[in-house]
Amino acid sequence: MNQPKYHIFVCSSSRINGQQRGFCVNKDSVEIIQNFMMEVQDRGMADTMITNTGCLGICDKGPIVIVYPEGVWYGNVSPDDVEEIVESHLEKGKVVERLEI
Amino acid sequence: MNQPKYHIFVCSSSRINGQQRGFCVNKDSVEIIQNFMMEVQDRGMADTMITNTGCLGICDKGPIVIVYPEGVWYGNVSPDDVEEIVESHLEKGKVVERLEI
Repeated sequence: MNQPKYHIFVCSSSRINGQQRGFCVNKDSVEIIQNFMMEVQDRGMADTMITNTGCLGICDKGPIVIVYPEGVWYGNVSPDDVEEIVESHLEKGKVVERLEI
Repeated sequence: MNQPKYHIFVCSSSRINGQQRGFCVNKDSVEIIQNFMMEVQDRGMADTMITNTGCLGICDKGPIVIVYPEGVWYGNVSPDDVEEIVESHLEKGKVVERLEI
């Protein structure tokens, strides 16, 4: 199969027992995921994949977003930051340093 | 922060509405995650991270496991395959070709 060009992981505080409870989901991570999906769709970036995850272990820096293949970790992300991450990192290849952790 | 050396993502069919429902979770993906955690702990691989995810989009090939930074996708993974992935891929750097998709 073709790997995605970018694979974006966003913590949605999803636990393996079926619960969804934790810091990131309480800080708008579902809205962050939805914004990524809309930005990527609006820009026709079919080679970018968005995936929600369980806890990424550094809740005090959440909501957490990871962009692979680079493995860049972003913290304290808000729904309003999504457009900048997509435009700067994904489109121009420039990491958003103010959010990097 | 220090990035993990390996970041393993396993689909647990976690949806952003808080449901956990789908192909991978019905095919033992929670046991796969637990086996990865135990293998990694037993081998003292503190630089490897295991994260559960929502749907990865190719359910007919599930359960799906992705190993970054390489971005290798494994399909039809069973709990019994975990030891081989850890030993071959993570310890020896050799992709498990029979499971790669």
